Formats: sequence, C-alpha cells, structure tokens
Amino acid sequence: MRFFPGGRQVVIGEYESLIKAMTKANIPIVASCGGEGVCSRCKVLIKEGQVKSLSTGKLTGEEQEQGYVLACRSFPESHLVVEVSEESKLGVHQVVLGEGGGNLKGRADGSKPGDSILSGSNGLCAGGSGVPLFRKLCLVMPEPDINDSEDDLGRLVRVIRSVTGIKHLQTNLDVLRTLPQVLRQSGWKVTVSLTGDGRYQAVEITEVEPGHTAGQYYGLAVDIGTTSVVAQLVDLENGRVVGIKGTYNKQAAFGDDVISRIIFASEGGLGELQKAIVDTINELIEELAKEQKIKPVDIRAVVCAGNTTMSHLFLGIDPTFIRIEPYTPATNSIPAVRAGHAGLNTHPLALIRCLPGIGSYVGGDITAGVLITGMAFSGKLTLFIDIGTNGEIVLGNQEWLISCACSAGPAFEGGGLRHGMRAMRGAIEHIKIASGGADVEYKTVGGAPPVGICGSGLIDCVAGLYRAGIIDRGGNFITAGSTPRLRESIEGMEFVVSWSGESGGRVDITISEAEVKNLIRSKAAVYAGIRCMLQTVGLPAEAIDRIIIAGGFGQYINVRDAVNIGLLPDVPVEKYSYVGNSSVKGAQTALISGRAWEEIDEIIHKMTYMELSAGSTFMDEFVSALFIPHTDLNLFPSAQS
Amino acid sequence: MRFFPGGRQVVIGEYESLIKAMTKANIPIVASCGGEGVCSRCKVLIKEGQVKSLSTGKLTGEEQEQGYVLACRSFPESHLVVEVSEESKLGVHQVVLGEGGGNLKGRADGSKPGDSILSGSNGLCAGGSGVPLFRKLCLVMPEPDINDSEDDLGRLVRVIRSVTGIKHLQTNLDVLRTLPQVLRQSGWKVTVSLTGDGRYQAVEITEVEPGHTAGQYYGLAVDIGTTSVVAQLVDLENGRVVGIKGTYNKQAAFGDDVISRIIFASEGGLGELQKAIVDTINELIEELAKEQKIKPVDIRAVVCAGNTTMSHLFLGIDPTFIRIEPYTPATNSIPAVRAGHAGLNTHPLALIRCLPGIGSYVGGDITAGVLITGMAFSGKLTLFIDIGTNGEIVLGNQEWLISCACSAGPAFEGGGLRHGMRAMRGAIEHIKIASGGADVEYKTVGGAPPVGICGSGLIDCVAGLYRAGIIDRGGNFITAGSTPRLRESIEGMEFVVSWSGESGGRVDITISEAEVKNLIRSKAAVYAGIRCMLQTVGLPAEAIDRIIIAGGFGQYINVRDAVNIGLLPDVPVEKYSYVGNSSVKGAQTALISGRAWEEIDEIIHKMTYMELSAGSTFMDEFVSALFIPHTDLNLFPSAQS
Ligand code: FES
Ligand code: FES
Repeated sequence: MRFFPGGRQVVIGEYESLIKAMTKANIPIVASCGGEGVCSRCKVLIKEGQVKSLSTGKLTGEEQEQGYVLACRSFPESHLVVEVSEESKLGVHQVVLGEGGGNLKGRADGSKPGDSILSGSNGLCAGGSGVPLFRKLCLVMPEPDINDSEDDLGRLVRVIRSVTGIKHLQTNLDVLRTLPQVLRQSGWKVTVSLTGDGRYQAVEITEVEPGHTAGQYYGLAVDIGTTSVVAQLVDLENGRVVGIKGTYNKQAAFGDDVISRIIFASEGGLGELQKAIVDTINELIEELAKEQKIKPVDIRAVVCAGNTTMSHLFLGIDPTFIRIEPYTPATNSIPAVRAGHAGLNTHPLALIRCLPGIGSYVGGDITAGVLITGMAFSGKLTLFIDIGTNGEIVLGNQEWLISCACSAGPAFEGGGLRHGMRAMRGAIEHIKIASGGADVEYKTVGGAPPVGICGSGLIDCVAGLYRAGIIDRGGNFITAGSTPRLRESIEGMEFVVSWSGESGGRVDITISEAEVKNLIRSKAAVYAGIRCMLQTVGLPAEAIDRIIIAGGFGQYINVRDAVNIGLLPDVPVEKYSYVGNSSVKGAQTALISGRAWEEIDEIIHKMTYMELSAGSTFMDEFVSALFIPHTDLNLFPSAQS
Repeated sequence: MRFFPGGRQVVIGEYESLIKAMTKANIPIVASCGGEGVCSRCKVLIKEGQVKSLSTGKLTGEEQEQGYVLACRSFPESHLVVEVSEESKLGVHQVVLGEGGGNLKGRADGSKPGDSILSGSNGLCAGGSGVPLFRKLCLVMPEPDINDSEDDLGRLVRVIRSVTGIKHLQTNLDVLRTLPQVLRQSGWKVTVSLTGDGRYQAVEITEVEPGHTAGQYYGLAVDIGTTSVVAQLVDLENGRVVGIKGTYNKQAAFGDDVISRIIFASEGGLGELQKAIVDTINELIEELAKEQKIKPVDIRAVVCAGNTTMSHLFLGIDPTFIRIEPYTPATNSIPAVRAGHAGLNTHPLALIRCLPGIGSYVGGDITAGVLITGMAFSGKLTLFIDIGTNGEIVLGNQEWLISCACSAGPAFEGGGLRHGMRAMRGAIEHIKIASGGADVEYKTVGGAPPVGICGSGLIDCVAGLYRAGIIDRGGNFITAGSTPRLRESIEGMEFVVSWSGESGGRVDITISEAEVKNLIRSKAAVYAGIRCMLQTVGLPAEAIDRIIIAGGFGQYINVRDAVNIGLLPDVPVEKYSYVGNSSVKGAQTALISGRAWEEIDEIIHKMTYMELSAGSTFMDEFVSALFIPHTDLNLFPSAQS
C-alpha cells in the first residue's frame, strides 16, 4: 500500500483498517471522533485499488463518487494507492470564530453592521498557526518496534507536533508517571489535553487518557467591568459560544468607581475586593453550567479582559500605586495563573489568562477591543472609543496605534444626575424636543413608564434643548420665550422632560442647568482627547476611515445627536459602527485562537500611551470644547446646517 | 555627570553616591554585596573630576592609581566623567567551575593528569550566555517618574534583563501580589531570586526581597548510581563545591541490579523504590547541611545524573518497558520538577533537573560524562568508557558521537566471584605473579589484611596468570609444571592468590578457572563493543586520540594489565586518563552553568545509539575477543612484546 504525498509504503494484515495502516506508515492522523466514523476527519482518497467501507459518515455523494472513504471505517481488499489530504492531516487548526464573529448588532440609525468590522480578525483567526489555550486531541499512534524505539514521551510529542505544528511541548510528572501504561493499555490510541498560555507557543500536555474520551470541554471568556461582569461559555471543540450571562460586579458594595476601590484595597480591603469579584464570576459559572447542563470542572481555560485595576483586584495584586503619580501598576502583563490558585470554580488546573494592557488607564479591556476590531492590522485609519466613567480612545492603523484615557465623569452612565440612571428598563433612551420646547417625545427602554434618563437620552436631550433654542452654546438656559417645562427650582433652572403621571411616570423627570453643563464638560473631555490624538499625528478628523464605538453606553447612542453636541467628530454617520461588548468578545477570541495572542503581543508592542494631563494642549482643547458643539464651528460643518 | 559607554548624563544632589547616580542615569549595576563596599563589583573609572571615596574595598593599588573607585562608597565632589566597565555591568556571568575542574586525579601509572580533559568544558562554561538554574541578584533600580512610568514588573524585568541578558523572564502570582510594596518600602533596592530550568533560557523570578538579603544559597549535584549515591553541595554564588558525601543506594534492599529493580517496580514496588532513593538523597542532604552548618532550605536547585532506570525510579515514573523489547523508557528527557513534589528536603520550590539520556541503556549519567570530557566539542577523537555492571561506551568528536551499552556482568565490580568484593578496605587491588606462579605480590586497599579481590585486582590477576604461563589464551589452567598455588577444588581448578594467615588474611583467597573465564567473557563484551563502534565509523584503534575512563572501577585499574588481557584497546598508555565520578561532576557543571544545558541539548541531539544485540557483528567480535588478549594478535602488538 502506498500513501501520497510522501510516497510511504506499508504492508498490512487482513482486518486492519486504513487508519491502522496509516499509523504503521507513520502518518499521524486526527481521528476526532476516535475512529467511530462520525467526524469524517479521516477522509482519504483511494487512487488505485479496492477497499470495503463500512460507513461513509458525513461524506457527500460527490466525495464518494470521487473515491473518498473514511480511513477508520475502510478495509483494504487489494493493493492500494491512497492520497491523504492536508485537511485530514491538519484539520484541527481550523478555529471557527462562530458566534463571536456574527454576534455584532448593526445599529439601526444608519451605521454599518458590525460584521464588516471583524473581517481583519476573522482572517487572522482562521490562519494555521494558532494554538488555543486548551484543546483535546484524539491520536492513533504508531507503536514502537526495534527500528523505532523512541521513548514514550518523545513519541507522543512527535505525533502531536506533526499533527499540530506546536514547537515547544512540555509535560508534567503526573502525566509521565503513568504514561507507559496508558499508552499500552489503550493500544496506542489516546486523547491528550493540551494547555498553553498563548505565549511562545509553549504548550503543556496536561492529561493523557486512554482511548477516545467522550465529553466536551469548555472555555470561559470574562469581561470584568467595574460595574458589570459578563461571562461567555465557549465550546472549545468548535469555538462556538454556547451561553452568555451578565451580572453586576459585587465589588460595587465597596465603591462605585475604580478610584474608590483602589483606596479601599490600599486600606486593607484587597482580600474582600478579590473575594467579591471571584464570587461574582463563580456565580456566573454556576448559572451557565446549570443552563447548559455541563459540569463547571469541564471548563478548562479562562480568559479575562478588564481594566488594569480590575485585573489587579481579581488576582489579589496590590493596586495602590495605580492612582498615585506616576501611576504605575504592579504589572501590565499578568502571568498565567491556575484557576485553583485564583479561586475560580472551574477545573482547578485550567489556566487563567488576563489580557494585558499598556498602563494604569489603558487595560486589557481596551486591548480586547483593539483586537476584535482588527484595526491594528488594517490599512484603514480607525478610531476606537470605549466610553464609561473613563473614556478610553485608541487611534491608529497597521502602522501605529496611539491611546489615551480621559476622565469623562459618570454622566454618560447616568451618574451624577438627579434623575440619571443606567440604560435599564424605564430609562429614557431617546428624546425629541420640538422647537420652543413645549412638546417632548421620548422612548424608554422596554417601553416601560419613565423612571429616569440614561446616557444616550441625556445626549439627545441636550442636543434637543440646543436645537429648540432653550439652551445657548454654553449650556445656559435661555429664559426668554420659555415653555412651562422650563422652571426655577431651588438648585436653579431646570427643564421637565416628563411630567409625573405622564405615561405612568411617578415623578417629574427633569434636567437642570448644572447637569447640562456637567454633560458638556464630559463631552468636552472626550472630544479634547480625540483632538489631541489627531493633532499629535497631524491628521484632520476627515482622515478617519471608521469610528468604532464600544461598551454599554454605545448601544443606544444616537450618533447624529452625539455629533451635534460635539461629543463625537463630525464625519459621515456611515463611518460609525457599534461593536458591542468588545471586552468579552476579545476575551473569547483569545480563548479560541493562539494566533490572537501573537496579535495581542503585537498590539501591546505597537500601542503608545499619551498622557493627557501632562500637556497643556489638552487643557486648551478641553476649554475650546466647552461649547455646543465647539468654539471652532468649522470642526462641525454638518451641525451648522 | 556623564557616563561612558553610552554618554548618559545626570545631575545629582549632595550626599548621593555614585551608584545612586548610575541608577538615576538608568545604568543598572550589580551590587553583589548590596553596596557595602566589600564585593568590589561596582568598580568604575573616574576619567574627569573629583570624588571622595569612603572605602577602596578589594581594589588593588594599581587600580586605585589608575583612578578606579567603588561606586557604592564614592561621592562626587565636582563634575565627573565616569567609565563603567563591562565587568561591573555583566560580572554575574562569570561562573567559576571551581573544584569541579580541578578535582581530577591523574593516574600514577603514566596516564596524563585529568585536568587537560576538562579544557573544552572549562572554556565553554566561562562563556557569557549561561543562565544557572538558580541565583540571587541584588539590584538597585531606577525609580519611576512621570517620564518613565513603566509598570513595576516591567521595570524589574527590564533591569534584570539589562544586567543578565536573560530573554524570557516570567514570574508568579505570589511575587506580583506584593511587588509594589516591596519595591517602594525597600527604596527600589531589592534582591531577586531567579530560577531557570536551563532550557529556552526561560527564567522565573521566584522571590523579590527588600534590600540586600544576606545569607547564602546552595545547589545540590547528585549522582544517582544503582549501587551508590554521591551528592555535592555547591555554593551557587561562586560555583564552588563546599561539601561532598556518598552512601549506598537504599534501593539495594530490593535488588542489586537495574533489571531486578525494574521487575520489583512493575510488581507494585515502584513507590517503595522511589521512597528508598529519596530517603537516600535526603540523608545526604542532612549530612551535608550539618557538616557545612547550613539549612537544607537554603538549597535552591538540584541536578541529578543517573542511568535511565534510576531517573525513572527517583521520580516515580513507571520503568516497566525499559526492560521489555523494544526497550522504550517513559522519557529520556524528564521535565523540571519542584523539590516539594518529588519529596526532597530542600527548599520546596527548588527545581530538580535530571540530566537527559538518549535511551534505556544510555542515560543521564553518560550525558554527564560526555559533557565534562568536552569530547562533543573537541577535534580530538575520544573514547569514553564507564564500566560498571553495564559498560557504556561513547566514541566521537565535535562532528559525531556514537554510543553503545554492553552487558559486562558484575565481574568488574567484584560480583559473581567467591572472593570478589568492591574496592573497599582489604580488597586486593593490585597483584603481581612471578613466572611459574610460585610468588605472588599484592596490595590491598588501605594496606589492610586481604579480604577479597576487587575488579582491578582481578584484571591484574588474570594478566599475571597468563604472563606466568599458568593459564592459556583461552583461560584454561595449564596444570603441567604447576605450583602449590594451583590446586583442584570441588568446582574445578583454582589458584590461591593469598593463603589464610598470610598478612593477617583469614581464608585462602582463590580464583577458579570458571571465574577466569567469566572475566574473559566480561572483557570480551566491552572490547567487542569498542570494536563494533570503530568498525561502524571505519576507523582503527590508532585513530583514537584519547581514552577517558570513568566510574569507581577505573580508579584502581592498571591500564597496562587491562590492555594485556584485551579489555582495553592497545594504544599508548599516555592516551589514557581517568575522570573520576563523571556523573556527579556533570551534574555539578549543569548546576552552575546554563550554558551547559545548551551543550547538553547539543550532545543529546548529536549522539546516536548503536544497539549491539541487534547485529551479528557484535557476536562475531565477542567470540573473537574470548581469548587473551584476542584471536587477532595484530590488534595487540604491545601485548605480544
Ligand atoms: S470519521 Fe472520525 S475518525 Fe474517521
Ligand atoms: S563593593 Fe559591593 S556594591 Fe560596591
């Protein structure tokens, strides 16, 4: 019997399957289903001779006509010439992005659907050299004989390497101690567990089980946000997201924002904060496991993306100096940690990898965002904006990346307002104010009775007040020609967005002059950050090819109104898109693709951080941006019309 | 102030030492003694300007005249131009071989002293890129400021890298958790512990202590022999051997040789065998610690060299298939293991590295031998012979290495003889027999009353019997013209080497015809192995430039007599040398030099194994060698004269 390519020959006995013959000829093959005839991974082409096939599995009629058979279910009946396709030899590399790529929701208001955003990353992840953080492989190995008496581990490594291309393979003592028996008792057919940390392509053989072990294995991608935590359960065999859950970060009990948590940690509360976030994630694991009917111990790899402070707190690393000049974190690049060591309720040996960041204020969540937009490998100039309490902004393309963080304050998350709230049920998310301000139309999340105003509603509101002539460019209420909605309160002028009783609302929902000015300061900070970056690289806003908005805030935002108040640059709305929770998506990509880790290394390497507070440029830009839309109206030509 | 090379400038305040100025200028420097003025590592040359030096430490008068000062004890009194020598920046690389190189004893009988053997290895170990398995470094780090706000770990890695050149540095969670506090509380002067596994130059920062921590740290080099175990305690700060102890392998209680131990292990005794050898090593650790007044926990790295079976048993790895065709060990290359995991009573996080072998019968002990002879990197054709129960032979030079193992039987260790014994007190180690055999002169180990005959005595004895005409070339006693020493016993003819009562001996010490023939079979096996290797590479014995003998047996051997009976090739005795316990010396070299691990990788890669039992050549050569000295007398021209 001869095999192509390579031309190796082998003589086999009766009742020996083709797959057996291949292992004799030292052609390692991936038997994903363990030779049960159901995965069709072992497909080969019979060029000459007769075989008897017991099953055709998933082979198409066309394939069968061409002469393809399943090697595991076929027995030679004559001399054969067999062609082994590359697909059968290397099929395991094909990482499917699955839900991760298709999950993006396009915005309704004219921005492009998100899937185009991912093309760069998609292309990269489908490549051949990626090594996911965990996977299992079923291997049928050639048996040793007097001409090939390599040691057991060497043989195993040789076969894994030829199937996967992984360069550096290690193992541990527990595997080695029983390896000789496992290999021989299983008849040289084993399932190996491979655990990597995504770096240097160093992979550890963490388990060798006899035969083809059924059962699935999963990974967890976690977005550790200051406010909320989102976890995705990913089937690591095919890269598909099988479940997703979110909840509030239990750390909120110790302070709302990053700064207050750091202070609490520095004063002896680090352990409590660590426990709070570990508990939060364990709760999500439990829910996901229950929903998907899996055992938490089947989760074999974890990737977390969070800001630098969250990453520190999650692993109990002292964050004190993140908030003290010169703002140095303990590390931007957290080493791989065993889940057991970190307290997560997954497989105790599962490796946890936190996505690295580049500084105290540009963390792994931003790296995740840059990763999934593909902007670091695109010729298009991209602006990535993640707005929460902090606005993190990245500008760049395949040549360079520049990032900054500006303190936007809590306004965009509905904080600091009497009637502000997050974008939950009952939050006013869109507002239209008729000229003069007498008529107000609004839409609440879930169509529920109005309870408060969320960030996007606030932007709409300020844009509407300005358009209706109720506020001037500086955010001052113009009392002349006023409507009943404009009234005096103890805290100064305020505008009634919704009357109590109206649509079931229980109180008057208002916005005060102070609150309008507060929002203007927030939008000025973000816009000034964008301007500083553009000036640093000497480019006008028109040079930007696409603007990608991430984070919960972006979900409801009306881009047109955000441009009108001067929060976002005045470029065609078609250039805007919304990427959703880029943090968890980036974590998911890193979970299923080793190649992603090479990209992450490159992103980290390429990205520079611009400290805004250090230069006077930022203050100048900030002051200029304290108007609607801006002091320099030439920057907002469309807003003028 | 300006520094060369590099030309960096820095302005410093009053009362700031030069070493402080250097860290300000971002010039990392090794302060081995922590700036106490005693190590002189921080030597710099003042090219221009005045300094006030509080101490000159170990600087020579000449150095002082040239303008050298200790940076840690000198304070600028004017503008300065300072030259920083490479030595001060990179001094830590200079690994001293110490006792390991000089320990070799030359043989009294004309062979060259051993030190020449080591030149190759010496040269290599002094090179620059080695990373020892463990070391501590005291570092004075530049403090972060607004222009250099790198994260703490990044800063630490940067400084370690610039001092040591280590490429891949990792750390663990325990170090990270407290790193920010440790760095700041110590005023950025810390002592780091670096642990490497010798491969890929991947090094882990295992501890960061504030300030300059006094106290020493040690390594342990262990030769795990089937019969005896030898441990060297090495001061890792300077590479010096500070103590050495040996004892019998407690596994002897479960069988004398490798095969019987494997059988015992296969039948459920693996745990007992593992405990026995771990206990043996722990006993040596305790003795060494007591003698040197150190704490076992100060032992921070362990390197073991042993045959393949011993390495398996030590770590509890199933050795069953080492003795079953096709003789495949679980692994030739055992991964690094924590001492705590293996049960050794050193620092629990100390890494244990076992030297890799190349097969079931050529293990890490032989790799150690090849390493310290330097033969793998020499132009000279070298034959390395380690004779115990198995004879392991390596032939080669910088181009190629070929190895084989032949079953010599226990004769050379005094086994299988009625009056045989190891080379201990009272063993007859040298024998001269006058023509005719009436007069016998002998020498015992320690000059004690004769108790038995050891391997070297046996060789002398057979050579003497042949020269005296008492045995023929086939090892048969020639009864004609016999002496009273030649007599009949129940087991056939025997020769009395020493009468009871003589020199205080209590019994007649004899050697029988069967025992002579047994020794001839042993010597034939070794010589046939050597011949097979030479024939495989197509070279005559004369092409060998040097022959290096290792192991306890070689210590007392009379090379002339060994050639005369046809055990060793007939080349000038000047080509022979004795290397002592090459196994423990190789382990020691690997303990103190990361470079050695690169050499080991190359040796493993280069060395091929020749299976003697597989070919008919060996049997032919073996039969031809069953004569004194050989069937083909042309192979032994000097023995004829
Ligand atoms: S069909 Fe899965 S291995 Fe053949
Ligand atoms: S003499 Fe040791 S650091 Fe200066």
